[in-house]
Amino acid sequence: MTTVPSPRDLDFLLYEVLDTAALAARPRHGEYSREAFDAVIDTARQLAADHLAPHQKANDEHEPHVVDGKVVTIPEVARAFRAVADAGFIAATHDAELGGMQLPHTIATAALLHLDAANVATASYALLTTGAANLIAAHGSDDQKARFLAPMLAGRFTGTMALSEPDAGSSLADLRTRATPMDDGTFRITGTKMWISGGENEIAENIVHLVLARIDGAPPGVRGISLFVVPKRLVDDRGAVGATNGVVLGGLIHKMGWRGTTSTVLNFGEQGPCTGYLVGRAHHGLACMFHMMNEARIGVGRAGAAMGYAAYRYSLEYARTRRQGRLPGEKDPTRPQVPIIEHPDVRRMLLQQKSVVEAAVHLTMLCARLVDDLETAADESVRREAGLLLEVLTPVAKSWPGEACQEAISNAMQILGGYGFAREYPIEQLYRDNRLNPIHEGTNGIQALDLLGRKVRQDDGAALTLLLARMGATVAAAREAVGGGTAGTSTNGGGTSLGAAHTLGTLADALEAAVARLAATTGALGEASATLPPARALANASVYLELASRTIVAWLWLQQATVAARALVAGTTGDDAEFYRGKLQAARYWFGWELPRTEAQAALLTRLDSTVYEMQVAWF
Amino acid sequence: MTTVPSPRDLDFLLYEVLDTAALAARPRHGEYSREAFDAVIDTARQLAADHLAPHQKANDEHEPHVVDGKVVTIPEVARAFRAVADAGFIAATHDAELGGMQLPHTIATAALLHLDAANVATASYALLTTGAANLIAAHGSDDQKARFLAPMLAGRFTGTMALSEPDAGSSLADLRTRATPMDDGTFRITGTKMWISGGENEIAENIVHLVLARIDGAPPGVRGISLFVVPKRLVDDRGAVGATNGVVLGGLIHKMGWRGTTSTVLNFGEQGPCTGYLVGRAHHGLACMFHMMNEARIGVGRAGAAMGYAAYRYSLEYARTRRQGRLPGEKDPTRPQVPIIEHPDVRRMLLQQKSVVEAAVHLTMLCARLVDDLETAADESVRREAGLLLEVLTPVAKSWPGEACQEAISNAMQILGGYGFAREYPIEQLYRDNRLNPIHEGTNGIQALDLLGRKVRQDDGAALTLLLARMGATVAAAREAVGGGTAGTSTNGGGTSLGAAHTLGTLADALEAAVARLAATTGALGEASATLPPARALANASVYLELASRTIVAWLWLQQATVAARALVAGTTGDDAEFYRGKLQAARYWFGWELPRTEAQAALLTRLDSTVYEMQVAWF
Repeated sequence: MTTVPSPRDLDFLLYEVLDTAALAARPRHGEYSREAFDAVIDTARQLAADHLAPHQKANDEHEPHVVDGKVVTIPEVARAFRAVADAGFIAATHDAELGGMQLPHTIATAALLHLDAANVATASYALLTTGAANLIAAHGSDDQKARFLAPMLAGRFTGTMALSEPDAGSSLADLRTRATPMDDGTFRITGTKMWISGGENEIAENIVHLVLARIDGAPPGVRGISLFVVPKRLVDDRGAVGATNGVVLGGLIHKMGWRGTTSTVLNFGEQGPCTGYLVGRAHHGLACMFHMMNEARIGVGRAGAAMGYAAYRYSLEYARTRRQGRLPGEKDPTRPQVPIIEHPDVRRMLLQQKSVVEAAVHLTMLCARLVDDLETAADESVRREAGLLLEVLTPVAKSWPGEACQEAISNAMQILGGYGFAREYPIEQLYRDNRLNPIHEGTNGIQALDLLGRKVRQDDGAALTLLLARMGATVAAAREAVGGGTAGTSTNGGGTSLGAAHTLGTLADALEAAVARLAATTGALGEASATLPPARALANASVYLELASRTIVAWLWLQQATVAARALVAGTTGDDAEFYRGKLQAARYWFGWELPRTEAQAALLTRLDSTVYEMQVAWF
Repeated sequence: MTTVPSPRDLDFLLYEVLDTAALAARPRHGEYSREAFDAVIDTARQLAADHLAPHQKANDEHEPHVVDGKVVTIPEVARAFRAVADAGFIAATHDAELGGMQLPHTIATAALLHLDAANVATASYALLTTGAANLIAAHGSDDQKARFLAPMLAGRFTGTMALSEPDAGSSLADLRTRATPMDDGTFRITGTKMWISGGENEIAENIVHLVLARIDGAPPGVRGISLFVVPKRLVDDRGAVGATNGVVLGGLIHKMGWRGTTSTVLNFGEQGPCTGYLVGRAHHGLACMFHMMNEARIGVGRAGAAMGYAAYRYSLEYARTRRQGRLPGEKDPTRPQVPIIEHPDVRRMLLQQKSVVEAAVHLTMLCARLVDDLETAADESVRREAGLLLEVLTPVAKSWPGEACQEAISNAMQILGGYGFAREYPIEQLYRDNRLNPIHEGTNGIQALDLLGRKVRQDDGAALTLLLARMGATVAAAREAVGGGTAGTSTNGGGTSLGAAHTLGTLADALEAAVARLAATTGALGEASATLPPARALANASVYLELASRTIVAWLWLQQATVAARALVAGTTGDDAEFYRGKLQAARYWFGWELPRTEAQAALLTRLDSTVYEMQVAWF
């Protein structure tokens, strides 16, 4: 397995596009330098190669199963969890005083991409623990932090998010798990949770469930939901793990992919009392949880990007070495077969993958960079703007990588042909694993409603306005980089400096038009929402999400292309020049092959197409 | 599991759209009537329910494995194969004197759709046997027919197609299996074949492999390939099965889906001599095989259509009964949750599925109807035109159903959410199974080259010209059905007669424009191919395949919509009226949501976009 992401591409994003080196100057990261950042990433690369990749397939083939009421995973899983914890990655961004590394999110994300790409199912135990730990760090009491957070960050306890129930998945408002107040300030938890990833395991001493439940007498709906820490085993004041706490495994769910992470049904308080500790204020649990869900959503995008990237790199290597057939026009069957990368249709499938996976990683890293700005930028306006951009980008960062990477992985499979469909090769597992990403942490349909129904509207559209302005700035920067326009007549993509400049000018024009289209479409839908019933105004939200996603990805590609064109115009040669030409060509592909779809999408949205809305149940 | 396809939809296609009843008037099918056709389909429905659907999951979970050199399948597989054979379906279209039913291909296809939908992996043993049997029937000697064909049609022997080798998959020109002539007129076969479905099994007495090999001294390339019958066990003059024949299982390949059908590596002549019998003329094997491959390709489309249809019907039932959430604008959390089909985004995913799977079944049935015309139409011009249409439709009928149904099944999975991803529910298996269809029997990339590089060019474009004329006739018929135009101002899709007529007029206009677009694009590419290198002219063939496919599907939908609108205008009421309104709405969906993509595709093709062609290997 090649290293994923490619070191050259990661360097490019971190230091040429996202100016990550600047983060080392911030007080929170004062211990770091670019060299130290790179050392962290090297550690992740090594961890992925040594502790995750080797059992990726084994953890799929020998999925967790129940023996005598306990969940058995292959031993490599616990060893890998230990190694990830020991390397500090569970606590990567946490305070040093809690045992954390105080890394910027951008660097932590770059590191985690390697773990996701190598073996997402095993990595998930650590990632879920980090997610739960972040929530306690943000909202927990000092006592909760001492009892639960510290051991989680050290990898002694694992963590879960326990939101969904058999009849409340997308609709959290309807969850029924109950919390009954006890005299000592704790709560008795009763109810059933479902789809809880990592909900049962033996890879660490204890499991800390973060559970949404309704306190007796709470109001119905989302305003009556509270958040609780519910450990599998009770923890005493001195941190010792004691008796079990009435959380019983109801069963394992067997998934198509991501098999190595247990997916569980958990019964709380069914066999013996189950104690929960309130986190934050009563009835404000969903707000707390959303803090973690936004991180989790960006994490879903990161996982999709990583898996897509892994499939791309594998199929690229395969296409370079596998020989099959001859080019059209070659009639002599005694001539040697060509490496399949020589076939234009194979290059098409590779270029589609490249344009998707490299942008997906960029999108994920951009979100992490914005989290860093939100948390540690010196300038208040920078922090505020980062927060706004994150609001509007999160539904796209959650949904687009998984969705687009599934198509990319499918292309990787197609390049391998029958080998791609065979379990003896790694692509089919990536295809199965990644398919979960459009489902979990809020289906992509819910992301679409979030984007169109909330994010682009709130604060008078401030977030979208800012995003569009940033896109405009990218257009201006691209034009500036090539001396102000589309001069030049070369049609050669990135083969020459002149070609690079010409390409960039063309792309800048196209992004400007796409931004105008997105703005106009959003405006038309905004006007419609003033007069139409909400369900009607939001009926085509998924199309809007795709329109916005494709436009945002074009924006990212123009950023990358600008850096690449500048370097080529400045006379870069050798391997770096090839790398930059590839970036320009991938940008050309995105703008020429993928972005034009937004034209029909904008037309459909603007005419308020009613086909779906008017479809009657009886007509199916 | 609901019946798939739905009986009402199948009746509609057979008798309202494709005029299948007329086939009963042809001499070859003189024993039949519409009632007899329906009885055959009922038999298939029952077979699917009794013998195939019940072990669909078991045959996936307990995939074939090797014990003491023999392949063990779950016992239900052999029983189902026996039941399919006993019902006459292996020999469905064969002559009565050979034990066949002399069914029209249209009815046989309608029957087989049920088997594919219920359990494609088990059904494949029978379907592969039919395919091999058809080849011997067309090209075999009388002796070969007596020895091998008769037992295959009776289900005593199974059959395979043994084309691919480890280093010759897409490129058959490079196959290396050798055939050495013996003094008795037989041949000694030596070599290795790979990906041979059903290549080893114990479900019948014998296996008849149809093997492509190169006779010693044969010319290189495709002109040196011959076809052989190679039985697993030798068969003597009286039909008795005797000694083994040097075909040895090299290993099983473990697939992502379609697991219940063995996929094998077979070694010929490695351990003991292996005798093969030449079929047809020496060095003309590929031409014989193509006869079968065209059938097999349409069969791949049928399987994809059936699987997509199964997922659609399942997710539709689920969406009608599963309650989750409330519509946007409903603020009261104490109101009951709504069935998820009430959510517009769920209806979008159902309508996308409906528009795909019902058209995919139509396309498959249309091809079968054309095979019937090719073989049994009284009028020579009808036969000739059917042959032409089949040529140009086959690459689309092979590729589009599997490709589009994968997206449809993905939508079915998304509707079920986590349940869709769980192996406890049937959708994920369909998602895994169907993904093979874009790969086997010539990858979709090869279909694209076949369409653009050959089918639309040969005979001065006669086939495409005829297809475009048929589309024009459909436009005219649609206009005629509604009294000549787009009069009327209703925007209500199919809710009223007036709305139906208006919709139909709009769709007819859109198809006319799409046909012009396809014609113009084909013309532009034809001109380009005169001057450009072949690899350059064909570089974007996959986009052309998609453009052609989407246009053809629009043509099918206009045919269905015309029948539906006529019925509504004539005053149909009740369930039938709901059914027809659904047809109109699905047509509106296809034209409004899916067809417009062809605009950007036509633009890309017409400008001879060079992004993919110019991408350099070093730039990746």
